[in-house]
Amino acid sequence: MSIRIGIFGYGNLGRGVEAAIRQNSDMTLAAVFTRRDPASLHIRTEGVPVLSADCAAQMADKIDVMILCGGSATDLPVQTPAMAALFNVVDSFDNHSKIPEHFAAVNAAASASGKVAVISAGWDPGMFSLNRVMAQAILPDGAGYTFWGKGVSQGHSDAIRRIDGVVDARQYTIPVEAAMDAVRSGSCPTLTTREKHTRECFVVAKEGADLARIEHEIKTMPAYFADYDTTVHFISLEELKEKHSGIPHGGFVIHSGRTGFDGEHNALIEYRLKLDSNPEFTSSVLVACARAAHRMAADGASGCKTILDIPPAYLSAKSGEELRKSLL
Amino acid sequence: MSIRIGIFGYGNLGRGVEAAIRQNSDMTLAAVFTRRDPASLHIRTEGVPVLSADCAAQMADKIDVMILCGGSATDLPVQTPAMAALFNVVDSFDNHSKIPEHFAAVNAAASASGKVAVISAGWDPGMFSLNRVMAQAILPDGAGYTFWGKGVSQGHSDAIRRIDGVVDARQYTIPVEAAMDAVRSGSCPTLTTREKHTRECFVVAKEGADLARIEHEIKTMPAYFADYDTTVHFISLEELKEKHSGIPHGGFVIHSGRTGFDGEHNALIEYRLKLDSNPEFTSSVLVACARAAHRMAADGASGCKTILDIPPAYLSAKSGEELRKSLL
Repeated sequence: MSIRIGIFGYGNLGRGVEAAIRQNSDMTLAAVFTRRDPASLHIRTEGVPVLSADCAAQMADKIDVMILCGGSATDLPVQTPAMAALFNVVDSFDNHSKIPEHFAAVNAAASASGKVAVISAGWDPGMFSLNRVMAQAILPDGAGYTFWGKGVSQGHSDAIRRIDGVVDARQYTIPVEAAMDAVRSGSCPTLTTREKHTRECFVVAKEGADLARIEHEIKTMPAYFADYDTTVHFISLEELKEKHSGIPHGGFVIHSGRTGFDGEHNALIEYRLKLDSNPEFTSSVLVACARAAHRMAADGASGCKTILDIPPAYLSAKSGEELRKSLL
Repeated sequence: MSIRIGIFGYGNLGRGVEAAIRQNSDMTLAAVFTRRDPASLHIRTEGVPVLSADCAAQMADKIDVMILCGGSATDLPVQTPAMAALFNVVDSFDNHSKIPEHFAAVNAAASASGKVAVISAGWDPGMFSLNRVMAQAILPDGAGYTFWGKGVSQGHSDAIRRIDGVVDARQYTIPVEAAMDAVRSGSCPTLTTREKHTRECFVVAKEGADLARIEHEIKTMPAYFADYDTTVHFISLEELKEKHSGIPHGGFVIHSGRTGFDGEHNALIEYRLKLDSNPEFTSSVLVACARAAHRMAADGASGCKTILDIPPAYLSAKSGEELRKSLL
């Protein structure tokens, strides 16, 4: 029987989940929930109801897994525990420092309801976390490094947009090749923030704005840019729309370790993602995790889980037997 | 309490396991078992007993996980089921086409004894399998490719050594960069065997041997070389020992897929290993899987498992709480 998926929130992530479900023949989109007026929202899958977020409870017996597609700042801390009281759920909570707190709140709700709740699914946290953990477990005498990019950072783009005189902006995070090569060499270098990534900004300024001041404000902004080598390009709104409307991202998890009785041999593990669409890839991970949540629930599991707790075969539509025969 | 590990078989893999245990403070080497005369075998860890393989049953209450370090051709098909009747076990069975058969035999033994048996741990099968499965689960609209090397293939080196007039030989499997780049481009190319890898052979011939005949026999050998572009270099025994005594290996699992409602975006997942010592890395995976086997057994699990069935957190010495805080 097809796994019935609900989408809670229909922004970039929600649309990505809708697209990913189409690629998985063991799943069906059962309903989309929105806080907007449902009548105003047009989804792309025909015949699927769009319902008010307030009506979710009424669909409890028609949805196997609810995928939460809200933001980590204010939506998910409230929505994931609330929905975990009613459904198996998956979210992409990505505020790393607050994961333990979010885990505790979701775990309490899901344990009480007997549901499975997978949090922080996506690529970082998510696939990158998985690779950091596995590489460190296999090569404990070693060091792990994460590099992000080249890709658009929404948070950094927003920070530039808040500067007086800025109309719009796009910020790319770029990993430094020399730093990655140093890691790959097995030298286990100590790298500063500045040595690992550069930041490149494309900025549309208001007519007559003081460009030198804007550039200075960007380059000296604490936490966001001050610790990086930052390049600022002023371009037209047309050019921004034409050349910088995508949301690509990706990065590298590189772990360099030693094997042998005296640590005499190097071993390198490298995991790379190169994504034309950051949110769509996150959505694809959410959908695979929804399948796993459904299976873990069928096994009798409950409570909060992360990608680190999921037996990998549960992510796949194939049976254990098929996987052992064709992919192991 | 420390996880007590037994090593069954003390060749390259067994020595690698001994070395890896030293890197993991939650583990202790309890005993090494050998089919040779135990008195003739000198291991590197002080104070650890070397026992006859026939005595394993007597150590059943002193070992938490037995790591089987024999070969896949004749040792493991017999040893893994036999030892799974007594211990939680881990092996590196790598005969891909016979995995379903091996799984069935080991599963019967481990289910009957109530033990956990992890088979086919290592890198291929093992970490590469895991990456093939996860990438396909996340990006079902896509294609996956495995490239091996640059590294020494023991099987191909042995095949050359069997040719009349050959004293010794070393064969390197080399992935074709152009093929990997074609895959990375997102074009999902159909690649022949010849297009994916080349083979480079370093051969020591007997004095006066017919080099042209040897080269011809290598290049036309069915299954091993005939389908590849193969290069043969004749060198001295001294040069072979000096420059080709290592056993490096590695490779790439590359999966290229599409995201978006109309598959309009590319996504690329690439996993790479670069290993100075192939057997030592395999041993490091075996040891991490031994930890997982011990934990799954403590959870009440039994029967045969593969890396696809192991919750990744179980591979790590860190607690779930520590992992969520520091690596998720």
